[in-house]
This record gives sequence, C-alpha cells and structure tokens, in this order.
Amino acid sequence: MTYLVNNPEKFAADSLKGFCAAFSQYVQPVHGGVVRSTSSPQGQVSIVVGGGSGHYPAFAGWVGSGMAHGSVCGNIFASPSASQVKSVVKAADNGGGTLILFGNYAGDVLHFGNGAEQLRNEGHDIRIVCISDDIASNTPENHLDRRGIAGDTFVVKVAGAAAAAGLNLDEVEATTRKANDCTRSLGVAFTGCTLPGAGEPLFEVEHGKYGLGLGIHGEQGLSTHTITTADEISTMLVEKILEEEPERGKDGYNGRVAVLVNGLGSCSYEELFVVYAKVSELLKERGFTIVAPLVDEQVTSLDMAGVSLSLMFLDEELEAFWTAPADAPAFHTGVVEQSTGKRIVKEETEAQIVAGSEESAAFALKIASVLDVFEKTAREAEPELGRMDAIAGDGDHGQGMTLGSTAAASASREAAAARAGARTLLARAGAAWSEGAGGTSGALWGGALSKVANAFSDHAVPTKVEIIDAVAKGARSIQEMGGAQVGDKTMVDAVIPFAEALEAKRDSSEPLADIWADAAAKAREAADATANIVARKGRARTHGDASMGTPDPGAISFSMLMAAAADMIRGF
Amino acid sequence: MTYLVNNPEKFAADSLKGFCAAFSQYVQPVHGGVVRSTSSPQGQVSIVVGGGSGHYPAFAGWVGSGMAHGSVCGNIFASPSASQVKSVVKAADNGGGTLILFGNYAGDVLHFGNGAEQLRNEGHDIRIVCISDDIASNTPENHLDRRGIAGDTFVVKVAGAAAAAGLNLDEVEATTRKANDCTRSLGVAFTGCTLPGAGEPLFEVEHGKYGLGLGIHGEQGLSTHTITTADEISTMLVEKILEEEPERGKDGYNGRVAVLVNGLGSCSYEELFVVYAKVSELLKERGFTIVAPLVDEQVTSLDMAGVSLSLMFLDEELEAFWTAPADAPAFHTGVVEQSTGKRIVKEETEAQIVAGSEESAAFALKIASVLDVFEKTAREAEPELGRMDAIAGDGDHGQGMTLGSTAAASASREAAAARAGARTLLARAGAAWSEGAGGTSGALWGGALSKVANAFSDHAVPTKVEIIDAVAKGARSIQEMGGAQVGDKTMVDAVIPFAEALEAKRDSSEPLADIWADAAAKAREAADATANIVARKGRARTHGDASMGTPDPGAISFSMLMAAAADMIRGF
Repeated sequence: MTYLVNNPEKFAADSLKGFCAAFSQYVQPVHGGVVRSTSSPQGQVSIVVGGGSGHYPAFAGWVGSGMAHGSVCGNIFASPSASQVKSVVKAADNGGGTLILFGNYAGDVLHFGNGAEQLRNEGHDIRIVCISDDIASNTPENHLDRRGIAGDTFVVKVAGAAAAAGLNLDEVEATTRKANDCTRSLGVAFTGCTLPGAGEPLFEVEHGKYGLGLGIHGEQGLSTHTITTADEISTMLVEKILEEEPERGKDGYNGRVAVLVNGLGSCSYEELFVVYAKVSELLKERGFTIVAPLVDEQVTSLDMAGVSLSLMFLDEELEAFWTAPADAPAFHTGVVEQSTGKRIVKEETEAQIVAGSEESAAFALKIASVLDVFEKTAREAEPELGRMDAIAGDGDHGQGMTLGSTAAASASREAAAARAGARTLLARAGAAWSEGAGGTSGALWGGALSKVANAFSDHAVPTKVEIIDAVAKGARSIQEMGGAQVGDKTMVDAVIPFAEALEAKRDSSEPLADIWADAAAKAREAADATANIVARKGRARTHGDASMGTPDPGAISFSMLMAAAADMIRGF
Repeated sequence: MTYLVNNPEKFAADSLKGFCAAFSQYVQPVHGGVVRSTSSPQGQVSIVVGGGSGHYPAFAGWVGSGMAHGSVCGNIFASPSASQVKSVVKAADNGGGTLILFGNYAGDVLHFGNGAEQLRNEGHDIRIVCISDDIASNTPENHLDRRGIAGDTFVVKVAGAAAAAGLNLDEVEATTRKANDCTRSLGVAFTGCTLPGAGEPLFEVEHGKYGLGLGIHGEQGLSTHTITTADEISTMLVEKILEEEPERGKDGYNGRVAVLVNGLGSCSYEELFVVYAKVSELLKERGFTIVAPLVDEQVTSLDMAGVSLSLMFLDEELEAFWTAPADAPAFHTGVVEQSTGKRIVKEETEAQIVAGSEESAAFALKIASVLDVFEKTAREAEPELGRMDAIAGDGDHGQGMTLGSTAAASASREAAAARAGARTLLARAGAAWSEGAGGTSGALWGGALSKVANAFSDHAVPTKVEIIDAVAKGARSIQEMGGAQVGDKTMVDAVIPFAEALEAKRDSSEPLADIWADAAAKAREAADATANIVARKGRARTHGDASMGTPDPGAISFSMLMAAAADMIRGF
C-alpha cells in the first residue's frame, strides 16, 4: 500500500521535489528530471539514465560523481516523454556526447528513442543501451529482448565509471554493452505493489506462494511456487543464473563476479542478509570470487515484497569500473575526488503563444471543448481501464489516459485564453499529453494530436474534408509510430477501422458528427473484439494467455474518447 | 510479513552471518555481535551500540569509521544478554574506555546495565547513555524516560564523531548526553510487522487508520487517526516536535537543525521524499536552517509501514559532529581517512566442563530432565504467550521463553554428557538461558537459575530443605533483579506467592513434589489474577489500559513451568 500521498496524480512530482531538497549537494531539478549539481570536466561523456518513477534508488538516486550525470524521471511506472528526455540530455551535456541507459520496456524504448532521434536531428551525438538482465523474460538467445531489472545498477555503475575515466563515447558505449551482456538477474515476488491513490494492488501473488521471475510491474514470470525456505529460494536463484555463466578462461573471465542481492521494497534488510548468507556460501563452494558485493535496495517497486539476485561476470575492465569510486545519493564506494564547481543549467524559456486569426481561434475553442470531454471521459473510465491493463499490461493505462488528457485539456485552455489558432492549440495539447501521460500510449496520443495539428493552420478554418483527412492521418500515424499491426491486440486494432470509416465517407454529404459517430462505433466494435485475441509477445512483453477474454485497454479508451468527441461535435 | 526465513529461531543469526559476509571491509563477527574489521588508534574511546535485531541499519549498520566501534546484536526485537555485551565491549576496546548506547527499553536497560556492572568489576571504564527521543512515550519533563527510536541515528553519529575527534571518555559521554537532550522524534504507523516464522502480525493498525506515536514494537502511541494527506501528516509531525524546540539564542542554539525522515520498512522511498518535501518547506518557512538532512531507512522495524521524523537542535559542537565524515555499511558522509590496519580480535576460549561427584551428577541429570520439560512446555505455550504479550508488551515473550528454555536445556544436556555436577550444570543452563532468550525475562530467568546453582555444589546432593531454600532464593532474586513490586503486573506477581508457599512448608513432612505442586498452583492463581491489573507505566513502557483483562504473560509462563516441574519431580 502507498500511504503517504497528497494528490495521487502529483505523487511523482512531490516525491521528486523532496528528493531534490534532500540531496541538493548532488542534484538539481531541471525540466523532466534531475542533473548533477556539481560541474563535470568539459568533453566528458554524459550518462543519462531514466524511466518511470517508483523504483528509487533507480534512477535518480544514481546521479552523482562516478555514476550518472542526469536522470529523466517519468511518472510512477510510466516512461518519461521525449521532450523530458531532450531536456535532461541537454542539461546534462558536457560536450562529449551522451549515452542513454534505461531498462528494456516498450514505453521507454519508444520515448527515449523519439527523444534521441530529435536530439540527433539537432546535431547531438546520442547512443542508447537498453538494459536487459532479467533471465525470466526471454530465452538466452534473445538476451537483448529481455526486461531490465536490478542489473541496471551494474550497467549504470560501469557506464558512469567509464565516463569518469575519460573514455570517449564509442568506448563508453562498447564497455556499457559489454556490462549488459555480462549481467544476469532473477527475482521472486511475494506480493504486488499499490499505486499511489489506488485502493488495491496493481497485481497480486497468491497467498503462501511466490512468483519466480515475476516482473517489477507484474509482468508474467516463469512459474509460481509454494514458499519454502530462504535457502531453497536462494539456491534456485543462484542455479538458474549460473546456467548462463560464460565459459571460464575465455574473454578474460575467470570466475570473478559482482553480486547484488536487491530488495524490492517490503522485504526487510534482515531477509536480504539471510539470502546473501546462502548466495555467498554457494558461490564460494563453486569456486567464484565475489567482488564488492552489494546487499541493498537499489531497484525497488514501491511496496512490493520480493528479492532479486544479480550477477555481473567480470573481466579486468568491468571489475575496475565496478569497484571505481562513486558518490551518489544512493550509491557510495571508495573515495571520490569532490568537484567544487557548481553546474549551471540554463532552463530553456518557453515560447510565447502567438494569437491566431479570429476564425481559427473560434475553431480552436471547439477543439478545446473536445479535449475537455476527453479528460472527463478518461477520468470516469480510469478504474475500468486500469483493471483491464492489469491483466494484459502493467496496469498504468487508466492513470496514463487521465494524466495525458488532463495535461492536454489544461494546455489547450491556456492556449485558448491567449487566443491561439487551431494549429498552435492542438500542437501544445499534443506535447502536453505526451509529457503528462508518459508511457507508450502517451507518446502515441501526443504524436497523433501533433500530426493533426500540422494539417491545420492558425488562420483558416478547415473544411469537413480537410478535418477528415487530418484526423485520419493523425490516427494512422499511431500505427506508424508504434509499429503494431491490426490483430496484435493494441489500440491500432480500433484506430485503423476508425480511420478507414472516416475516409470511406470523405466525400459523402452526411454531417461530420454522423460520420464521426459511425466511425467511433466501428472502433468500439473492433476494440471489443480484441477480447478474443491473445496479447502479442513482443519486445519485453510476455503476457501470454492471461490476456484472453479481456479487450485491449488502449483500443477501448480510444473508441470511448472518439464516441465522446462525436457527441461534442454534434452540439457545435 | 517476513518471507525469507529458514529456521525462525536462527533468523537473526543467519541474517548477521550474511551481513558480515557482505560488509567484511567494515565488520567482523565476534561472540554477541560485530566489531570493526579495521584498527582504531590506541586510546580512542570506543562506542558500542546495540539492542534487538530487526531494526537494520540500527545497529550493526553503523559500525565503521566515524561511527560505532562495535554492535551487540540481540535476537529479533529482544535485548542481547549481559554476556554478549561483555564480549563485544571487550573486542571493541581501544584502551580509552567505552560508551554504550542503546534505545531506552526495559530489557536493554537491564542487560546492558548488568553487562556494564560486570565489566566495571573487571576494571573497565564503562559509561551508558540511553537514547530517549520518542516524544510520544512520555511527557517533556520525563524526556529521559522516553523510548529510543530513529533519533538513535543522530546520537550514535555524534558519539562516533566525538570519539574519532579524540575526545576523552568524560567528554564523549557529555557530548552524547547533549545530543540525546537535543533530539526529538515522532512517528506514525500504518501497519504492524510480522516476526520471522509468525503467520500473523505482532500487532495491527486498523485499516484506513494510522497510529500516531505507536512504538516500533507496537507499544502504545498517542492516538489513532483516519489517514489523510501526506502533507497533513507531515505538518502534524513537525508541529508536535517543534513544541519542544529549545529557546533560540540560548546555549548556542539558533534554529539550525539536523533532520531525518526515516522509513520503518514498507513505506517506499518515494513516500519518504513526499514527506520531506513538506517538512523542509515548513521548517524553512519557520526560519530554520536544515543541516545535512537524511531521508532514508535508518531505524526500521522489519516490514512495518510507517515513517518518523527526527530533529536534532544543533549548537556548533553538535553540528560539527553531525557533519563530520563517517563511513559505515549504512551511513556515509564526507571523506573518511581509510584505516589500513586490520583489527585482530582474540576470541576467549570456553572453559572446559569439569565432572562432578557421581551423586551430584546423578542429581544433575534430574535437573536436566526438568529443564527439558521447561523447553517442551514453553514451546507448546509460545503462541498463547505471544498473543498475551502483544496486548501488554512487545509480543516477544513467547519466543523469548522458547529460545531461553531451549538454550538452557541444550546446555544442560551438554553438561550432563560431561558428567557435570548440579552446580555446574545449572550455572551453564542459566547463562545459556539469558543469552539464548535475550529480553527482560531472559535476564531474570537466567539470573534466577544461576542463583539456585550457587546454592548447590558439584559433590553433595542437597536435602529437601536445601532444595526449597535454594529455589525460593532463586525465585526471590527475580524481584531483586527486576525491581518490580507485587501488584505491578509482572512475573513477580506469581514468583513471590510461589516462593512464600515453598517457604511456608519448609519444615513440613509432605513430599517435595506435593509442596512444589501446591506452590505452583498458588502461582497460577496469582498469575490469573493479574488480568485484573492495568500494566504499570514504567520506564519506556506506557501500555496503559489496553492490558486490562489479559494476565501478565511472564507470570503465566512462570506458573506453567513450575507446574510442569512438579509433575517431573513426582516421577523421580
């Protein structure tokens, strides 16, 4: 349970504020996250980490000397937006290029990827390493498609030490890839965790059982077992990970390992030490040399009860970087030369809103009222969407839709007050949605609104045909951005029938509201039909058969919002 | 819930083993706890901390440069024994005397006090400061009678820094007393915690409510409230603590404060930061300067969900010691000069058991069989005793009786195997009980057995009158050691009627078994009658009216074991 909450929607922001206040000697807040408060040498590669919040110390607790230069902080369990990524990367830049690190989850891959692409277009040298240490989430051959969990700690530590040692971006990237290739984790969970403001856990583990390899957001694991002794659980974790031990005597590896016993939140430190007692005994029996072990909470999942074991199989270089000095809010080792300089970050000033023509401003007001009804609809549907997503996904879809639509409606009201035209209003709403929601669906909704905005102007009022073309184009862009096909059990299953229905009546004489309502009904029908599909097993998603019988929440929410928009349009 | 457990009785020992393995660069195990693994300057005052386990990082996580030199590690939530205290103090000694620090709980006061007394008799200079920061547990006038909670962190840090700065024992003691006088804490709890092996929490907090000032073992708090916002809870904690702010401008205090927001186990770090955001805002509004704030888990209570706020009102000296460098497993600040020397600890070798006369060894075997039946009886009664103690005490009485009687029975079997006489066998059993059980009742039972042992010899077999005199003396020593009076709702309420009944029939011709059985029945009657008494509000105990209707578990367990002994004696 999460008990200490003000407004649940602002929980992550409140928490980040307290974090920055408590650790001002290490970090300073910037738009989208934090960067170091101390200066770094000019030309040093900068390491930017990030992902959803709720996993502290991951990721912001690792910003400091010898570790990361900045952290992009998404909402609870939701990926940050591309604009947050851009902001933090720019603020953390030392002129030596940037390596971005995050755990391999679909939303993070999308948002960080978009942010990196935009930064590359602006001339920045950006590399990405997705961390993929969780052996429960895919086969050894598909190591790079696995999820990232507590092994993040090793990979970020090595990257930070490599950057601090003065390696260039190519070298830091290569060393960090090697660290990820040499890192393996496996965890067990005894309970789920509860999102701020929620009355029930995001997912549950049957009483008296534990989930082996259960993901930190409830993603499917390997199997469920009756709880036995700590020694038996520890032995199983060690043995499963050692199935992937590299060959000794090859590539500089000789049985030296970094070890992390990581608590997920509610397990006591005493329990972690009980596990480590057995783990260290087993590893020594098998001829391993343990280097600088860590028994701590490093990658948590709110109040989830569970523990994970991570090993990094070390060559000489990885060992040197793993044991190099570091000093961050939640990671200390050795003696770090303290930087005396203060890092000065220039916040980019927001562009002023320019007023549009009177006609376009009037049309923009109508768009704002549609966005208002999106917010209302999303808020009402939040619990239902959350429940659906807990079965097929990571449970944050309801919250993400509320956050995104609220941010978009708020931005559109601000733009309307400044008499913005339709293009400006929608563009600002799209950016706000993406940023406010985070997560995969936030990126897709934000991107789609921006696409529609680009088809409008700030002076003329579009015709019915122009509106249909713009909206259909925006809808189709969702498929292009997300890469899913119809039938994959994603929102695309509702989006494409909607676009097709609009386009089919492009030249008919029916009123727009009727055409729209018909298209929304087709979208709903298609969304409901996704209940008959098993969720696709894509990148870092292995939901499998559990999703059968439940429609895709993204498809459902899309069709609900389109139906609400039709009612609104009819009233104009 | 505590999930990762092997044998619950060995949980604390397993955990300590893993802790020592994980942090061998800081600590080494010794009998009774841990001491630093690095050397300290000759003549430096040594700081020894301790108490029950289950509160990590408190206390062992604070052993390291600039903090403590050793930690005495009791069983889960149970005070360590006097012999453990002696062992750790001797191993941590640098020749400059020792300051012992622990939270103010009855069991700790008793055991650490006994240990210190024995060490003083051997010529050691030992000082004690009981930490008493929890404002919920007594009035401001009785500050020194309050319980110790997360403020332990401040007091231990200051003591360690004062010792590291080369102050002598008088000065270290005075500074540490000042630190305790300037420290105030208050906490809230949302749930209880579950002892290893237990299926139910030690105590519960009503769903949707929180306990203000509820002790970390479930001791009574100030009041119960419906959960509101994090900001309201944070504001209340700040305001209640500030009621005891010292006058500014006096004694070198000018509004500078050290701040600790401490998590009790299951609250997420994100929640702690939400609390700190408000706490720091309020303190700044009121003109405070926050010095080196700490938002972390420092004094936990297994998997309890809760948070506490601690402030230390700083003068120049306290601020210097609070911010001085330190490097321990769970506390790092500034840059510590690393000691390169290794601390060599000599373990004291155990005394060999010397065989007694044939007659005394035969009598000792009978005593061993009584101790066996004590163990059996205590094990069967453990759940019932635990439930009683959860109402009137800290819930560990059942476990303590099992651990103590098991250790005593095991030691007596070992002594019997070596053909020990009655005196030796009982003395070893008494020492084992005290050490195996920890807690207040462990000290009293162990002390009483030792008292009886001293009245026996290793060659002669005592007469019936000698047995009655010895046992009555042992029983009466419980009152002398514990300081309670009949009517205080403690085990003394059963012990004294038992002793009186034995003594009354000292010269009668009845068989010993009958006299003993009568006395045990009187003890039971008196124990049952304690249900009509409200627990006394003694040192660090404020159970109050909740105990009415439940008999004292210590009185009940005493009468149960005496009844079992009577059956045994009849069979001889």
